[in-house]
Amino acid sequence: MTRRYMDFYFDYLSPYAYFAWRKIRSFRDAHGLELRTHPVVFGKLLDHWGQLGPAEVPPKREWLIKYCARYAHQHGFIFKGPQFHPFNSLSALRLSLSEVSGQDQEKVVTEIFEAGWAEGRDIGDVRTLISVLDSAGIDGAALAEKIKEPTVKEQLKHETDRALQLGVFGIPTMIIDDQLFWGNDQFDHMSLYLEGSDPINVEEMEKAMARQRAIDRKKVKSG
Amino acid sequence: MTRRYMDFYFDYLSPYAYFAWRKIRSFRDAHGLELRTHPVVFGKLLDHWGQLGPAEVPPKREWLIKYCARYAHQHGFIFKGPQFHPFNSLSALRLSLSEVSGQDQEKVVTEIFEAGWAEGRDIGDVRTLISVLDSAGIDGAALAEKIKEPTVKEQLKHETDRALQLGVFGIPTMIIDDQLFWGNDQFDHMSLYLEGSDPINVEEMEKAMARQRAIDRKKVKSG
Repeated sequence: MTRRYMDFYFDYLSPYAYFAWRKIRSFRDAHGLELRTHPVVFGKLLDHWGQLGPAEVPPKREWLIKYCARYAHQHGFIFKGPQFHPFNSLSALRLSLSEVSGQDQEKVVTEIFEAGWAEGRDIGDVRTLISVLDSAGIDGAALAEKIKEPTVKEQLKHETDRALQLGVFGIPTMIIDDQLFWGNDQFDHMSLYLEGSDPINVEEMEKAMARQRAIDRKKVKSG
Repeated sequence: MTRRYMDFYFDYLSPYAYFAWRKIRSFRDAHGLELRTHPVVFGKLLDHWGQLGPAEVPPKREWLIKYCARYAHQHGFIFKGPQFHPFNSLSALRLSLSEVSGQDQEKVVTEIFEAGWAEGRDIGDVRTLISVLDSAGIDGAALAEKIKEPTVKEQLKHETDRALQLGVFGIPTMIIDDQLFWGNDQFDHMSLYLEGSDPINVEEMEKAMARQRAIDRKKVKSG
């Protein structure tokens, strides 16, 4: 039997990525998938597509914090959010590269997500990250040495560039075959797809995607 | 008993607004709310907050079309999407102002949404809009005369400016009391809030909102 893959693109800056990570491993198991976990630099995606992050629009940030608190309560888990936000997630992302964490990758990702979003620690700080990994039985100092290497920096850059090539525009993104699913609310759609019950008619979709634009925004005049 | 209000902000450009509109009247009835319906110019919100619309990021547009088809199938309704997209929604929005459509406002909004998103008609075109309203027993030509008045253009501008003042950053937005809820997935959170079971601790939230930024994006260097 050939393996079927699910690629998961994330940055620790995104609470939605944390929420999706909480579910993705049981989803993977339920569907017999192989999970490939890709840390990427969210800010680079935003810059590439000309977007702002949710926390960069003040009322959206305010709504988002409330949304997260409500979501966590609804799903019965503790939610604090990292000590600082936004923070520099580059060290955390580099520690999470499969080239750095190897067999421990999923454990590393889980520990860092939990330390930040559940425990409210500063996961932008390398010493904190080392301590988080040490507590989980992983040699944090050894990994922290590795991420100083230029090749590791290149690997994160490569992951981000590759994500951009695949059209990843938001976090979290899951890709199965050639289907991109964006957001924490996509698990039921992914299930339909994996079960062969995707309602999408590819031919109709292609027509819809080629639909003519009647207007470009800058030409709209209001009042 | 004092009335409790729910304010609904929308533009016909947004399929999520259509999805929310399909549910909002039964939600209003279930919770004994008074619904106030506010057409606003989505492009003006985007410009104000420095954002792009979902259909303006090519891979996001592609994902969004698939998302909508999957969502509609899942919820058992016909979904086509307007003949052109994006389109100029100003006439449709002006027809939908309470100052223009009066007692018929909800009917007007329903008919226009359905004509565009369920039937695939060109709801950017005034003649189409007149015909849609006529078929529903509303004097479309009379309303179309009204929206030529400068005061009507001002009313739409006023609705949009007021929405911006309230921090509306996306479509659809629902506001209940001082709580802003963004998106079609917010009905369960609104229910909790209305039932007095909102898990949010206001004091904690205020602390979280004041959380220190550790970094600003432009300073992040990757690789």
